[in-house]
This record gives sequence, C-alpha cells and structure tokens, in this order.
Amino acid sequence: MIDCDVHQNFDHVRDLLPWLDPAFRDYVVHGGYGGYSLPNYPWLHPSGFMRGDSVPADGGVPGSDYPLLREQLLDAYDLEYAILTGEEILSVSAVPHPQLAGALATAYNRWLLEEWLPKDPRLRGSLVVAPQDAEQAAREIRERGGRDGIVQVIVSGGALEGYGHARYHPIYEAATELGLPVAVHVGGEGLGMNRPPTATGYPAYYVEWHTLLPTTAMSHLVSLVCQGVFERFPELRFVVVEAGVAWLPSLLWRLDANWRALRVETPWVKRLPSETVREHVRFTTQPFEQPGGSIESLWAVLDAVEGLEQMLLFATDYPHWDFDAPDQVVKRLPRAWHEAVLSENARGLYRLPAPVLT
Amino acid sequence: MIDCDVHQNFDHVRDLLPWLDPAFRDYVVHGGYGGYSLPNYPWLHPSGFMRGDSVPADGGVPGSDYPLLREQLLDAYDLEYAILTGEEILSVSAVPHPQLAGALATAYNRWLLEEWLPKDPRLRGSLVVAPQDAEQAAREIRERGGRDGIVQVIVSGGALEGYGHARYHPIYEAATELGLPVAVHVGGEGLGMNRPPTATGYPAYYVEWHTLLPTTAMSHLVSLVCQGVFERFPELRFVVVEAGVAWLPSLLWRLDANWRALRVETPWVKRLPSETVREHVRFTTQPFEQPGGSIESLWAVLDAVEGLEQMLLFATDYPHWDFDAPDQVVKRLPRAWHEAVLSENARGLYRLPAPVLT
Repeated sequence: MIDCDVHQNFDHVRDLLPWLDPAFRDYVVHGGYGGYSLPNYPWLHPSGFMRGDSVPADGGVPGSDYPLLREQLLDAYDLEYAILTGEEILSVSAVPHPQLAGALATAYNRWLLEEWLPKDPRLRGSLVVAPQDAEQAAREIRERGGRDGIVQVIVSGGALEGYGHARYHPIYEAATELGLPVAVHVGGEGLGMNRPPTATGYPAYYVEWHTLLPTTAMSHLVSLVCQGVFERFPELRFVVVEAGVAWLPSLLWRLDANWRALRVETPWVKRLPSETVREHVRFTTQPFEQPGGSIESLWAVLDAVEGLEQMLLFATDYPHWDFDAPDQVVKRLPRAWHEAVLSENARGLYRLPAPVLT
Repeated sequence: MIDCDVHQNFDHVRDLLPWLDPAFRDYVVHGGYGGYSLPNYPWLHPSGFMRGDSVPADGGVPGSDYPLLREQLLDAYDLEYAILTGEEILSVSAVPHPQLAGALATAYNRWLLEEWLPKDPRLRGSLVVAPQDAEQAAREIRERGGRDGIVQVIVSGGALEGYGHARYHPIYEAATELGLPVAVHVGGEGLGMNRPPTATGYPAYYVEWHTLLPTTAMSHLVSLVCQGVFERFPELRFVVVEAGVAWLPSLLWRLDANWRALRVETPWVKRLPSETVREHVRFTTQPFEQPGGSIESLWAVLDAVEGLEQMLLFATDYPHWDFDAPDQVVKRLPRAWHEAVLSENARGLYRLPAPVLT
C-alpha cells in the first residue's frame, strides 16, 4: 500500500532555524509574543487534532518523531511508500508577508530533504510553496523540485482565490516543467489573510468547519476547470488531498450540465469537465465516507463517477484524529478497486518504482 | 403537481412605491443613479438569467406578467398550486441599511398579498424578510405571516452568518408561532454586504458561481443542525430551495460521522444529524441533477439517504434559464416517489387543501 497523506511535523517552527534565510531568523526567534508561530486555528477539536497515541514519549508534537511514525504507520501496516505532506507549514499560505512565507516554506523544504527523506527509503516528500507569490513559489519549485524524493508540490486549500486564477499559473508552469503534480490539501481556510471557510463566513464550531472542508476542494476544482488551467497546462496533474470523495457525483453532474448550457462563457474549456477531471485530477480517500446504512450505498455513489477507480489514492492521514486505518479503507472499497486505489494509481502518478520481487 | 419554486417579480422596485413606508420613498425615486436598485449580480449568464420565451410582450421582466405565468406554467402543466418565491427582492439580505431592507421586504409582501395572491386560487406566497435585523423580520412575520395565502417565510442563501446563529432565532420564534416553515433560497451570495460565495472568495464566472451554489445550502444546513436550532425550536421546518439534492448523501454521512466523534463539542445536539434533517428539513428538486450516464446512477445516490422520498419537493424554478420541465423531473424520479415528491410532501408541509373530487 502507498499512503498518500502522512503528516510529519516539526515541534516548533524554531526547528527550521538552521535552514532559514538569516534575514528572517529574528522573526522566528523574537517575533510575536516571544517567538513566531504560524497562524493557528480558532476552531479546536475538543480532544485535540491528533490521535492520542501519536504523542511522542518526549512530549513532542505528533508526527515529529520518526521512530514512532515508523512503528505506528510504516511498519504497522507494511506500507510500501508514504507521501509526507507536512502539517503546520501548510499555513504559510495565510501569512500576509509573502517573503517571510516563502522563506519559511523554503526552510521547511530543506529540512524535509535533509532531515526526513534520508531516514527511510519508504518516505517521499511534498514540496511546500507559499502560493500568495506564485513567482517566488515557482523559483522554489525549480530550485528544489527536482531533488531526490520530492514527488509533488503542495499548497493549502485556504487561499486568496480559486487555484484556477492566472496569478497561480507560474506554479503550474514550473511544476509541469519538473513533471510534478500539484496537490491542494484542505485546511488553512479562514486563517490569517485567507478567505473565510464557507459561503456563510466563519462557522462556530470545529464540527462545522471539518464537515464543510470538501466545499473548499469543490471551489478549487471548479476554478481549475473553468479557468482552463488544464488546457493551458496539458501535462499538469492535480491532487485533492483530505477532502473525501462521495461529493464527486453531484459536483461533476452539476458542472457538466452547466458547462453544456454555459460554454459560451468559457470557450477555452474545450472538453466536458468530468473528462478533464478524470484525466487530470486525483483524490485521496481520507476521510473516506462512512455510509449510515450498508456499504453498498457508498459503492453506488462511487460507481456514479465513471472511471473513479483510476482517480482515487489511498491515504490514512496519520496522525490526525480521523486517521483511516488501512483495514477499514480496504473494507470500504469495492474489491476490484483494491490494486488501483491502494497502490497502482499512486505508483503511476508519482512514478514510484515497483517492488523488487525476491 | 405542486410547484414549490416559482419566481414572480416586479418590473422595477419602483412598482412597490404604493406599498412602501413613505419614509423610504425618496430612496427608491431619487436614490443612487436616478433611482434605487437592489444589489445586482456581478456574474451574468451570457444569454440572460431567464428563459428567453418568458419575456412578456410588453418587454417587461420575466415573471412580472401573470397571464404569461399562468399560460406557461400553471395551465401548461395543470399545476395544483404554485409557491411564489419572489426574485430580485430576495437580495434585501445584502442591503447594509437594515431599516431600508426591512421596509422594502414589507412593501414587497404587501404587494404580493394585494397584487398577486388574489389573481389565482392556485398561487401561494412566501413572506420575504431581511434577516440582517432578525427582530424587525420577526415583527414582519407576526404582522403578515398569518394572512391568507402565505405559506412560508423566505430568506436568501447569501447571508452574514450561517442561519444557525443565535442572531436569527427571533425569525424562528415568530415563524413557529405562526406555524410557518422557513425557506432559504440560494442566491445573493457575495452581493452587497453578504459573504463571498465560496471558501476561495469570488469565483470568476457565472458557471462557477452557479455550480457551487449548493455549498451555501450545505453551510446553512450544517449551521442549523450544529447550533441546535431544531432542539431549540422543535416545531420548526426548514426548506432548502434551488440547491438540488444529490449532494445530500456525502454531506449527511460526513456530518453524522463527525457528530459521533465530536458531540462533546456541541452537547445540545441530541440526535444524529441525518435524523434531525429528515424530520425538519425539506429540499426542492430543482436544479435536479442530471447524471452523465444512466438514470439508475442518480437513483442510487437518492437511495443513499434514508427517507429522502419524504424530504423532496417538486419545483420547476420558472422562469429561470435552468427551468426543470415537469415531464423531465418525473422521468428522473423513481416511480414510487412520484406522489410524495410531486405533491403530497408539499401539501403536508404547507397545509394545502386536497383537491375536491368532482
């Protein structure tokens, strides 16, 4: 199995100091109230965002301790690969100071390359960029996107605009140059300068915020298709991470029907949107929907999207509280989909070597 | 058949002058650039928001001409009842001046009661309120909500907050006193002072805005459930209008799963959210999803929500461009659902008399 959403983290942004541009070290050491912190969530899971058993013995941050991550995830489930997606660092998208945001992303990427990827041959990395300055992000992609172990670029769902906007095109240009997919990981909505998380502003509770997270993914997906990003960058692959999947039939039906009726508004969109999505976009399974009744009702929804078995990527979301245990995901997937979703779709997308037969 | 979303309109807000509080007549006559207009959409359907054939012979606004509405809708489809939902007036929610907004809503309601409902025994009305001042809205509900022909209160999806917020409780208190459901009609998002229409701000194109409209309905629905509105007002019924239905399985699965895991955060929510929604919320069918493949894929999605056949209300959305012709809706509904969805659910909700057998 290839796990496409694994959150490794630093204990504190201070840990990035050795890799941070010296011009910004004073921010991290002395900034704010006795040290810089990235924008944090005003909605809190009442018992914590992380699995209780994922706190390292030294009291550090879940995901910061490689031996524990290896034990609880890589070894426990005999994973072939784990795609690291970062955690707190994704919130650089919410930082108004674009140079600081970019410098923090770069420091994180250097730390990822030097401190994490060499630890285990099963680990692969996502290059974090701060999308508010896409030219800066593109430079980072060209500088470090080709390093061994980097398999995609990643940005947060929380953003200033839908990711179809032309302001983000430099990111896609650089990513396609390097043959890297671009992942959008839900989260960061409403933080710092990012847009409020819903069409009705700021929800009151974490349960609302978390339930509505897929709506951010919907907005970005519709934006990418309608602004013609995939016509402009035909090699681009996009990955929607941590938004679940059961909302796809209704969204794609609606988008297709509207495109048929309204295509004069966006003549650069040449194909049926669902075909474009099928070719260009992949979705990680977690948080994989749990039907209230029989599993067949979930399968019926999955079957409503043509070719979905080629579009899904298995993910656990370790060490988040709503971790999808692999045995549970396997039970919720139609048997015929196992090979594609559990490993082969990711292997193809990320060009991961096949296992050596011994 | 009972059509639960029919848009009648005035030609111009000037038409409401005889019913408008004199204190605000100068706004309408002299305000702005030579006369007041309600906030209008920056996203435009390239060939117009309305069915081309719905423009009256005098060149007026679609939905403003009763004989044409009767001919094209009431008589053409032999409707038993049509629930009028207004049109431009729903944008009072976006007007920063709350007294002006309330006065316009009141003038519209008086016009509806005097000029529209007496025209045809098949017409029923929705009382428009300006939710930004809920106490004012509650006074309007108590003043006119009991008049003959009024069957519900209506507000726009575009709003300042999710409709679960305590600021809106006076509306629910007054509506339940009068035994009226409260309808939220998608639209108005991002207009005037309302919140941007998506979690990524303002989409570029009408096709995006329209495709993503159900996300507003999702936000309000989640807000209502999580803030405990239906525990506080156990008699309240809510109607989600013009948001389609195929997104319900994924949203309710996610909300139920999150409630199970997170209920300590909202201890006032006593029941499984999907049960609360099944008891308290109804959804109009239009724009009824059109599956790309076989109709069975739509039915499979509908079947994934327990009891959905009791929750749907047939609607055409006349005279909007995406009008759902009744014969098309009938074909897209499972046969066993016809009676409930086409008429009986609405008859029960709105307490409409059964036809007299002759």
